Amino acid sequence: MKTRYMTSSVILERMRESKEVIFRSNDRGADALRPTRLVRDFVATAEGSVLIEVGNTRVLCNATVEPTVPGWLRNSGKGWVTAEYSMLPRATLTRTPRESERGKIGGRTHEIQRLIGRSLRSVVDLKALGERSIVLDCDVIQADGGTRTAAITGACAALALALNRLVKAGTLTKSPMRELVAATSVGIVDGQVLLDLAYEEDSQAEVDMNVVMTASGGLVETQATAEKVPYSRAQLGEMLDLAENGIRQLIQLQEELLQG
Amino acid sequence: MKTRYMTSSVILERMRESKEVIFRSNDRGADALRPTRLVRDFVATAEGSVLIEVGNTRVLCNATVEPTVPGWLRNSGKGWVTAEYSMLPRATLTRTPRESERGKIGGRTHEIQRLIGRSLRSVVDLKALGERSIVLDCDVIQADGGTRTAAITGACAALALALNRLVKAGTLTKSPMRELVAATSVGIVDGQVLLDLAYEEDSQAEVDMNVVMTASGGLVETQATAEKVPYSRAQLGEMLDLAENGIRQLIQLQEELLQG
Amino acid sequence: MKTRYMTSSVILERMRESKEVIFRSNDRGADALRPTRLVRDFVATAEGSVLIEVGNTRVLCNATVEPTVPGWLRNSGKGWVTAEYSMLPRATLTRTPRESERGKIGGRTHEIQRLIGRSLRSVVDLKALGERSIVLDCDVIQADGGTRTAAITGACAALALALNRLVKAGTLTKSPMRELVAATSVGIVDGQVLLDLAYEEDSQAEVDMNVVMTASGGLVETQATAEKVPYSRAQLGEMLDLAENGIRQLIQLQEELLQG
Amino acid sequence: MKTRYMTSSVILERMRESKEVIFRSNDRGADALRPTRLVRDFVATAEGSVLIEVGNTRVLCNATVEPTVPGWLRNSGKGWVTAEYSMLPRATLTRTPRESERGKIGGRTHEIQRLIGRSLRSVVDLKALGERSIVLDCDVIQADGGTRTAAITGACAALALALNRLVKAGTLTKSPMRELVAATSVGIVDGQVLLDLAYEEDSQAEVDMNVVMTASGGLVETQATAEKVPYSRAQLGEMLDLAENGIRQLIQLQEELLQG
Amino acid sequence: MKTRYMTSSVILERMRESKEVIFRSNDRGADALRPTRLVRDFVATAEGSVLIEVGNTRVLCNATVEPTVPGWLRNSGKGWVTAEYSMLPRATLTRTPRESERGKIGGRTHEIQRLIGRSLRSVVDLKALGERSIVLDCDVIQADGGTRTAAITGACAALALALNRLVKAGTLTKSPMRELVAATSVGIVDGQVLLDLAYEEDSQAEVDMNVVMTASGGLVETQATAEKVPYSRAQLGEMLDLAENGIRQLIQLQEELLQG
Amino acid sequence: MKTRYMTSSVILERMRESKEVIFRSNDRGADALRPTRLVRDFVATAEGSVLIEVGNTRVLCNATVEPTVPGWLRNSGKGWVTAEYSMLPRATLTRTPRESERGKIGGRTHEIQRLIGRSLRSVVDLKALGERSIVLDCDVIQADGGTRTAAITGACAALALALNRLVKAGTLTKSPMRELVAATSVGIVDGQVLLDLAYEEDSQAEVDMNVVMTASGGLVETQATAEKVPYSRAQLGEMLDLAENGIRQLIQLQEELLQG
Repeated sequence: MKTRYMTSSVILERMRESKEVIFRSNDRGADALRPTRLVRDFVATAEGSVLIEVGNTRVLCNATVEPTVPGWLRNSGKGWVTAEYSMLPRATLTRTPRESERGKIGGRTHEIQRLIGRSLRSVVDLKALGERSIVLDCDVIQADGGTRTAAITGACAALALALNRLVKAGTLTKSPMRELVAATSVGIVDGQVLLDLAYEEDSQAEVDMNVVMTASGGLVETQATAEKVPYSRAQLGEMLDLAENGIRQLIQLQEELLQG
Repeated sequence: MKTRYMTSSVILERMRESKEVIFRSNDRGADALRPTRLVRDFVATAEGSVLIEVGNTRVLCNATVEPTVPGWLRNSGKGWVTAEYSMLPRATLTRTPRESERGKIGGRTHEIQRLIGRSLRSVVDLKALGERSIVLDCDVIQADGGTRTAAITGACAALALALNRLVKAGTLTKSPMRELVAATSVGIVDGQVLLDLAYEEDSQAEVDMNVVMTASGGLVETQATAEKVPYSRAQLGEMLDLAENGIRQLIQLQEELLQG
Repeated sequence: MKTRYMTSSVILERMRESKEVIFRSNDRGADALRPTRLVRDFVATAEGSVLIEVGNTRVLCNATVEPTVPGWLRNSGKGWVTAEYSMLPRATLTRTPRESERGKIGGRTHEIQRLIGRSLRSVVDLKALGERSIVLDCDVIQADGGTRTAAITGACAALALALNRLVKAGTLTKSPMRELVAATSVGIVDGQVLLDLAYEEDSQAEVDMNVVMTASGGLVETQATAEKVPYSRAQLGEMLDLAENGIRQLIQLQEELLQG
Repeated sequence: MKTRYMTSSVILERMRESKEVIFRSNDRGADALRPTRLVRDFVATAEGSVLIEVGNTRVLCNATVEPTVPGWLRNSGKGWVTAEYSMLPRATLTRTPRESERGKIGGRTHEIQRLIGRSLRSVVDLKALGERSIVLDCDVIQADGGTRTAAITGACAALALALNRLVKAGTLTKSPMRELVAATSVGIVDGQVLLDLAYEEDSQAEVDMNVVMTASGGLVETQATAEKVPYSRAQLGEMLDLAENGIRQLIQLQEELLQG
Repeated sequence: MKTRYMTSSVILERMRESKEVIFRSNDRGADALRPTRLVRDFVATAEGSVLIEVGNTRVLCNATVEPTVPGWLRNSGKGWVTAEYSMLPRATLTRTPRESERGKIGGRTHEIQRLIGRSLRSVVDLKALGERSIVLDCDVIQADGGTRTAAITGACAALALALNRLVKAGTLTKSPMRELVAATSVGIVDGQVLLDLAYEEDSQAEVDMNVVMTASGGLVETQATAEKVPYSRAQLGEMLDLAENGIRQLIQLQEELLQG
Repeated sequence: MKTRYMTSSVILERMRESKEVIFRSNDRGADALRPTRLVRDFVATAEGSVLIEVGNTRVLCNATVEPTVPGWLRNSGKGWVTAEYSMLPRATLTRTPRESERGKIGGRTHEIQRLIGRSLRSVVDLKALGERSIVLDCDVIQADGGTRTAAITGACAALALALNRLVKAGTLTKSPMRELVAATSVGIVDGQVLLDLAYEEDSQAEVDMNVVMTASGGLVETQATAEKVPYSRAQLGEMLDLAENGIRQLIQLQEELLQG
């Protein structure tokens, strides 16, 4: 019998014992997102603040509007959007030493904050933003896989809030955000394509993929990495299918938060 | 007429206009704490986790039990308790750059985490703890004055939770925490002694004092700093009186959380 | 008339003036690699040494065999393969300050050396390698786009040389490299999909993609980034087609070098 | 018999054997300072230079007048006074590695130099100083306890010398130093309150307190830390009494140096 | 029989066995340079580029012209010439960790790049250069002793090329290089004075000397270090004699490259 | 009339006005050292402590005996001697920022401490020292030129004291110091060779030379640097003559201190 995914509770116990079926956390199917929630204004101090919860993953995304741009953009008439990413030491089950204590930022952190920044810039008209910068601080409160994609989804919402505030204040006539952008992960575990991997699943995955997509369906980033076994073009297509479905649901949640 | 503190709403408007009375945030008296709340198990990943809210100040305190001790304690049979303190960039109204980005930890951070560590060690029997370390990560989510004293109060509760868990697991026969410890700030603003300064008050204070006290009333740390004008022995006494009252209330809250 | 790519010299001058046709450096078509060469044993000091030249991009890839593994692999019976990447200051037209002078390694460097390491590990049986590490130093002598993919292709060849030497020395009975791996870049410029972008093309690209593929056609990494405009699933497919063709030619060159 | 302090040499030997009496170094009583000396113009290169010797503790305090202020004071019309503190590696009986070698400044150093700076600023009219900075370099040549309080006392004298020189040069019409400030330590050893702890005494102390006081008796900093056992309000009062007496003698010495 | 140096192949085998004669690599005499070659325009990206090969030592020297000067020279009308020196990790037989990875530049590197910079400035009229800087990047591709002196010789040629280009471009009316400068090492091995030590010889040397001399025979730097045994004035003289002869040959090679 | 050196006070005033004669500080001739003094046991905490004063240059040299050796000497039976050099911020007329504040040690410091270490090792039998290290901390209290050579002379005396103490304690049967070593600077100012340059002279020198020589006259280091104009072999000889004379006097002072 081949490994399948199912949610019916009738045959649950027997299957669990037979170990022929894999049960995902939150009793979800292979193509389902974890329960996801976006909390608006989690802190009162930032220009835009969103706490995103994707299963047990929780990331606080705060937007700061700054009146200056990096040196290479000065007098260009263009603005800038960038991100910083960090994990609290006990976001993880075993404590991770602070990067401030170690005196330097690791390669993984660099890689992630560059990805978040690029993703957000792809939907912002930097010319219309004018010579100001927006920094998105993405701090992981609790980590259970998919922190970088949760950060993109949450940061996009926080950025939208901050831009709307600039419009309300009369600083900008309309928001320079062209459309929303969100992200999720997808992977291959035991030969099966799964959406939105939790940490446990991610650590066993043969292939791990992050997809960043806009509301209109344009792809912004697709990164598929074979952790153990190379993958085929067909598998790449399957993963993209699942990811696109998931991202549509995430963008729905962003829209609800912004209307709220 | 001398400046007085009052809460009665009848004479409120007239007074506000006369500027003869100072109104504190949360409509509290000179000797009142801000509304304070301790939330248990804010993250599920740590051995002890407490979110403390003191007015708008919110600090997440997570305890990690580690099986080793620093080099100088090896083979001493004694354990160690230490703390790390950090602020999220947007805990403050204007963004503070990350210490990990700047590549080094500032003097203020060092000063605070040493204070938290010393305060906690004063109520723990390190011999009874055995050769293990407990790290208290105190991360400020939102800052409105008094973050270091809130961190001590919250970290003590998180530490107690982690130690209780070691007892429950049979690792220790009884908790090595001798008694609870908590802290608050007190200061002189406009010649008037005030308990538990919010940021706005703190920035105008002539004298700023932190008091750390145990449940049985023993003093662990008293630090009184004249920011603008030296203070007298009499004023030092007044400040200690207010602080002791406040700390008794905080220890009450810790006890409720631990029973919860 | 739509933009097309052509190599015929008859209509060259007229076309160049009309600006309706884009000419690529080395007079190549949209689906052609730049002239590529792998030089064996460029330095005599390393266990494996390959200089790879892809157009004007030149990267020196040196393999070092070390008798130890990182801490987390000790006593696991498994080996490790990792990479370091750096550019000489005048690899570029304007001088880039050294990372050693700035005292820290930038995010781009981290991102690249992690990519090279992952790509190489995907074709090595780390169990068969045994508890030893191989470090691939990839130093860019001259940069004209595609340095990270050139580094992967060159480093794979240098790694193969070093492993063959271990076999010849009797340290290993057969090479733990399962198959060769190589990489190239592909992108969309002015709406047109192009293989193996030179720096000038890369800086104008709407989409930039790196593909890492094994000799048997398995995908190891696909990273497609929209620099300005999101891309469609169809465009992703076209880019993959070009890249697969190019990588087959690169693997041919690796095989020739290893037989030489 | 209770522990008492005495200097008479007649009963000295018998007592020493009985271990009922504690003898302090320099044969001094519980309320006595160690022999203290301030040497003027120890180096000729600084605008103000004082070597302070408190028992075996020797700290070189040099004042530098700089024509600029930190960024946040620019165009404020106000000046700044700050301090840096360091120990020569062999100030201590076992060598302490240089902070320059370790590449970062430790928490203890930060804590101390912030204390020195605050103490000095409390007696200087920064408005009257005008937009210039004075840096006090406090370098410990030999350490035997009480280096931070010695540094405050010595640095105040060096600062006064530098300010007097600005008056003599006509840069300022009168010195912006309102009054002198000095500091000493006090502690509880074996239940007994002692003034001016030497290193040996400090390392056994139950409570360690630093007091910074002005010539007119105003308190600037009081920091009392329980190292092992919490202390009572009564003990805090006793410690302050001893400290005030000691500081009066130190200010006398500062005055003599300035008249010299 | 005393140790002598000889190149005749007739008595070669017998001598080698007797161990009474030391054979140098490249079958050269005590006063001979290793085969030396200067390759022009090794990279196309730099304003001046020279690869120097001295035996197995290979150093890539690239000159960068920058339009600014360090702060202390601003508005002085004078230019600046400086150097940076680095070794690729596998320039040596065992891998040397990157200084960028270790986060700081070692003492040896600092010492060498200061020597290169001083040597080059001694032959350049900084006034005539005008307010611009020239940076010489000296990157060691392969190391077999004498890398710092090879770097001086190669960097002088690269600097001359860059200055000639400024003349050709009309930026300067004539080259501000007064004369060529070159360098070699010399040492005492087993009591015998030898020119141009290879790594193997250098590691056994009693005395190691670097000499930097101009085309007209002026000495710019002489550094003689006793590694094991002090040396006499007479030996210093002998070493200088050999070095002067060697440097004349190197300057000949520089002249040929510049005419090429 | 040619420039001459003279001390007679009769013609002093006339000459000074004519500017035909250069007067050196301390009214000394071209071949005279500045007044030099070595103070024994300047601190009581170190195993060997010497304060050396050469004119206004004052360097505190402290020797520390450590029971371990660097990794590469472990189990070699050999010891190690090394040095660290630092300047107090106000050793100079304008304040120099601390290297600990800047987070890294500069090239000049590295160069100097390597020179001191090499010089001292040249007179110590490291085999006879056994597997222990001696660190010489050379801290410049006041700087007026020649700090590195003063450090060598002072550190040699401090090292001798520390080694004698090891003999007295019975740890070693005889001192492993073969002979004393000392150092001075010499230079060419205005075409004239001068011994022991003060800062003012050094900053105008055409050539600057440091000579390190042993008691028996063996040369350990000679470093002659042309700051502006190349020098001849004849000038090199003249400089060495003056330096040898000066060093003999310094070794005399070391011997007196050691007998004291």
